[in-house]
Amino acid sequence: MTESAPSKRTQVGRLPQRGDYSKATIHSILDAAFLCHVGFVVDGQPFVIPTGYGRDGDTLYIHGSAASRMLRNLDQGIAACVTVTLIDGIVLARAAFHHSMNYRSVVVLGTATLVEETEAKAEALRIISEQIVPGRWKDARPPTAQELKATTVLALPIDEASAKVRTGPPKDDEEDYALDIWAGVLPLSLQPGTPIPDPQLKAGVDEIPEYALHYRTQD
Amino acid sequence: MTESAPSKRTQVGRLPQRGDYSKATIHSILDAAFLCHVGFVVDGQPFVIPTGYGRDGDTLYIHGSAASRMLRNLDQGIAACVTVTLIDGIVLARAAFHHSMNYRSVVVLGTATLVEETEAKAEALRIISEQIVPGRWKDARPPTAQELKATTVLALPIDEASAKVRTGPPKDDEEDYALDIWAGVLPLSLQPGTPIPDPQLKAGVDEIPEYALHYRTQD
Repeated sequence: MTESAPSKRTQVGRLPQRGDYSKATIHSILDAAFLCHVGFVVDGQPFVIPTGYGRDGDTLYIHGSAASRMLRNLDQGIAACVTVTLIDGIVLARAAFHHSMNYRSVVVLGTATLVEETEAKAEALRIISEQIVPGRWKDARPPTAQELKATTVLALPIDEASAKVRTGPPKDDEEDYALDIWAGVLPLSLQPGTPIPDPQLKAGVDEIPEYALHYRTQD
Repeated sequence: MTESAPSKRTQVGRLPQRGDYSKATIHSILDAAFLCHVGFVVDGQPFVIPTGYGRDGDTLYIHGSAASRMLRNLDQGIAACVTVTLIDGIVLARAAFHHSMNYRSVVVLGTATLVEETEAKAEALRIISEQIVPGRWKDARPPTAQELKATTVLALPIDEASAKVRTGPPKDDEEDYALDIWAGVLPLSLQPGTPIPDPQLKAGVDEIPEYALHYRTQD
């Protein structure tokens, strides 16, 4: 465990040895992914919606595709939880009880607010885009004023956050190591396939950009 | 859009044409994954925690690793949202505004309750295990009474649920198809690597089981 939890509610409860509150760990996990699950509450009911995000320093920008339902309640900001999870493998222990996953996850709690100013919103969208496909933004047709207006971006400070990480082989009970059961880790990772050109691609525009040909995820 | 939403709060708000409320679609997405993000509320603050799950008919069993914080509030059940997301690709449109992801996601709302009876709990754990690594349960050392007691399993009915799916190439504005910008889809999928045997593997127990050697995900 590195450093201490920034708040009681971010303290890792179960298996606290897997908790990590260092900025370096939290940022490195956030930088290795691009999809988050945003949690918010409407009339006492929790909602969890997947969406893209980007990190800039100590701020998380969340694409507003998740926001349609949130926005009904969003004026001075809304209590949110943003969780990012990378699955690195399935841990096959000898005991069913000790089966686990290798993973890196971050939970950020806080108040999400709208990014309203036009230039700040454009910059936040660039950050989200570069997090998802680094290198793409400069090639794409930039958003018009109208498109910017139609896009919602939320900002969430990354100061009340915790990471949780599991790595390595299974941990079985001492006596179970004598059992005739294969044990180990099945690695899993999000892998890119071969880019599929748009069937409506303009003639002559057939060179697949480097960032799509050699996309790297979850480093 | 197939069928109608089971409730107003499960109705897909943004891009409603991507919504699907048919049991077949919802079940097939749930069956293709094993990781969910569980949302719940403590003192008005939403929490979103990743954990493994399994589906049996119209019930979702959620592994209780997420439950330590939930449990403080859990007696007659707790309002929960379980979201499952499979990322199938990144959609590179010509316009930054039309960039998107191909995905399959399911949102289940409802009241999660504890599975308390011993046999029901053991069966729920088998279902979760088989969802994560089909074939493993019969090989693993079964849980003892003590281990069962130490494991929390939650059940959530899958009756207030919606799916959202995007597939296919980018959709750009008509005039943007003339731009000299490459567009297409970069497929992404969670892929298994080569199983890593436990360094403490018992001598002679070195045959990697078929379900780890040829693991299939997200079909």
